[in-house]
Amino acid sequence: MSIKITGTGSFIPSRIEKNEDFYNHEFLNADGSTINSPNEIIVDKFKAITGIQERRYVKSELLNSDIGFFAAEKAIIDAKIDKETIDYIIVAHNYGDVKHNAEQSDTVPSIASRVKHLLKIKNPKCVGYDLLFGCPGWIEGVIQAKAFISSGIAKRCLVIGTETLSRVVDKHDRDSMIYSDGAGAVIVEESNEDGGIIAHESATFTYDEAHFIYFGETNHPEITDQRRYIKMFGRKIYEFALTNVPLALKTCLEKSGYSINDVKKILIHQANEKMDEAIVKRFYKLHNMEMPAGIMPMTINTLGNSSVATVPTLYDMILKGQLENQKINKGDVIMFASVGAGMNINAIVYKH
Amino acid sequence: MSIKITGTGSFIPSRIEKNEDFYNHEFLNADGSTINSPNEIIVDKFKAITGIQERRYVKSELLNSDIGFFAAEKAIIDAKIDKETIDYIIVAHNYGDVKHNAEQSDTVPSIASRVKHLLKIKNPKCVGYDLLFGCPGWIEGVIQAKAFISSGIAKRCLVIGTETLSRVVDKHDRDSMIYSDGAGAVIVEESNEDGGIIAHESATFTYDEAHFIYFGETNHPEITDQRRYIKMFGRKIYEFALTNVPLALKTCLEKSGYSINDVKKILIHQANEKMDEAIVKRFYKLHNMEMPAGIMPMTINTLGNSSVATVPTLYDMILKGQLENQKINKGDVIMFASVGAGMNINAIVYKH
Repeated sequence: MSIKITGTGSFIPSRIEKNEDFYNHEFLNADGSTINSPNEIIVDKFKAITGIQERRYVKSELLNSDIGFFAAEKAIIDAKIDKETIDYIIVAHNYGDVKHNAEQSDTVPSIASRVKHLLKIKNPKCVGYDLLFGCPGWIEGVIQAKAFISSGIAKRCLVIGTETLSRVVDKHDRDSMIYSDGAGAVIVEESNEDGGIIAHESATFTYDEAHFIYFGETNHPEITDQRRYIKMFGRKIYEFALTNVPLALKTCLEKSGYSINDVKKILIHQANEKMDEAIVKRFYKLHNMEMPAGIMPMTINTLGNSSVATVPTLYDMILKGQLENQKINKGDVIMFASVGAGMNINAIVYKH
Repeated sequence: MSIKITGTGSFIPSRIEKNEDFYNHEFLNADGSTINSPNEIIVDKFKAITGIQERRYVKSELLNSDIGFFAAEKAIIDAKIDKETIDYIIVAHNYGDVKHNAEQSDTVPSIASRVKHLLKIKNPKCVGYDLLFGCPGWIEGVIQAKAFISSGIAKRCLVIGTETLSRVVDKHDRDSMIYSDGAGAVIVEESNEDGGIIAHESATFTYDEAHFIYFGETNHPEITDQRRYIKMFGRKIYEFALTNVPLALKTCLEKSGYSINDVKKILIHQANEKMDEAIVKRFYKLHNMEMPAGIMPMTINTLGNSSVATVPTLYDMILKGQLENQKINKGDVIMFASVGAGMNINAIVYKH
């Protein structure tokens, strides 16, 4: 028996927010001081480092649970399954449902319950819960689905990563340009084919790192309300990720029994193009190799960082032929990997 | 091999909020209309139905993650384990960290990451995540720990239920008197002893029931801000629970292979004393029996409904001899059960 992904779906919001749309923002340093550059320069520098030129925001009437539902519906159709046969709905997110222009997160009922309700699934034995694990939440959900299936308490799981980061950004923070909205979903199930999930690796670094990504106040010194926004210590994260993600990838690959030469694609969470390249280059360097061209498909340029949605969306787009010059063929060994708030890191070796 | 709970801990906040402390509240109906009774009568009626005469609130400087940490510390000491050997930290909650007088929930980093940080655990292979599953979240966490251990990806898990409902109550709603703060934690691990977790049952009802417990506006018609509070349709929940919880208990017991006569205690989530009695009576009626005296230990009178914390706190108090006339002996078969937002129901048959 193997445990395979048998269907994928994603939802990419139609509203495009271009870098030029930030030209009139009042960006400030974290200490509230003025940045001595015109916005055009700030945005250009941002683009040069992160690779992001546009991102997607949901329309004002949509919620996180709505777009998770859209992606889930597609994954169910793609897997050609009866939705009533799903044993678990695992929804990875970090901020719940935040309404347009609202401040509070809404997590009761869980996003999984909301998605199940929208899917009109009647079977009460289909258990829905939410998983909070930073950006690596969707990969962790797949790992949990694997545990449920291999322990015999489930045969078929729907794993969703959905986030509307546009609802928690501080418009006075340059980092706000990183974040995007989106949702990706997969069906994970028992299969008689070979391959599937071969190995996984998970880690949580909290001793020094717990608050590298956090909920903090606006950079604007004159706004004194209590509202908090997604915030990060970018430099610390960069150094942390560059040290630890290549090692996690290496450990995971060793567990799988496959060699580095077997790896056909690495689908890595995308928060910063330069950082991702540095991570994957270092992973290859640990094996005394150069990073092969095209090994790391990227969507960050147009989709930004949609947190838990990035990896499943990327996977879905490749399988559906929506990413130029990127293909995954039957039998290909690929890796999923992510790093994010917590600080959490995880990886999966998967044989397609 | 069995999977057993080898240590327990709980944190009961020291601040007592008595029923009399609500005498000066302005209670209103959900439609904003006045309730034609003096508060003393409202509070007496409330007490007669729910059994609650006082509840606990955390001090203003404490957060949900702090009290989860306090309970976790005790469980680790009680289990006599090295904290660095914990493979998973699973934290069940529903509202994250909400500061005193603040509106927003803070869930980034996860509460599990915060607890791990406070525990000063260094081992990055100790994976921490948050689980949102309504009040049944702690029991669900134990079920997930069982899945991880039986699938071979963990040997030892810390499962915490922690909640500060005092931070999300609408003081103009009579139901606000139900809610309480608290935290409970256990160590779940592989054991060479017999017994442990014998069977479990989980269910999520969303087709009609998803929004029986929800985040809604204040009952006060003149307060027009966007702030939302924990809200419920009490009558619907009562009917739902009375129909479905006894059946879930019965199914779980059948799976376990034990007979109703083997069951020594039922530790059920406590939101309403009358409802809990009706549920357990009906469970026995399904077996043509009367509910035995003392089968259902209660803490609701003094501790209110602390959501995910209620069941692990109750269990810890019994084991530590803090509940009069209640004991669990080695070899006793007990049941854990819960119902709450989602709407989720679960149960475990556990041999002590």
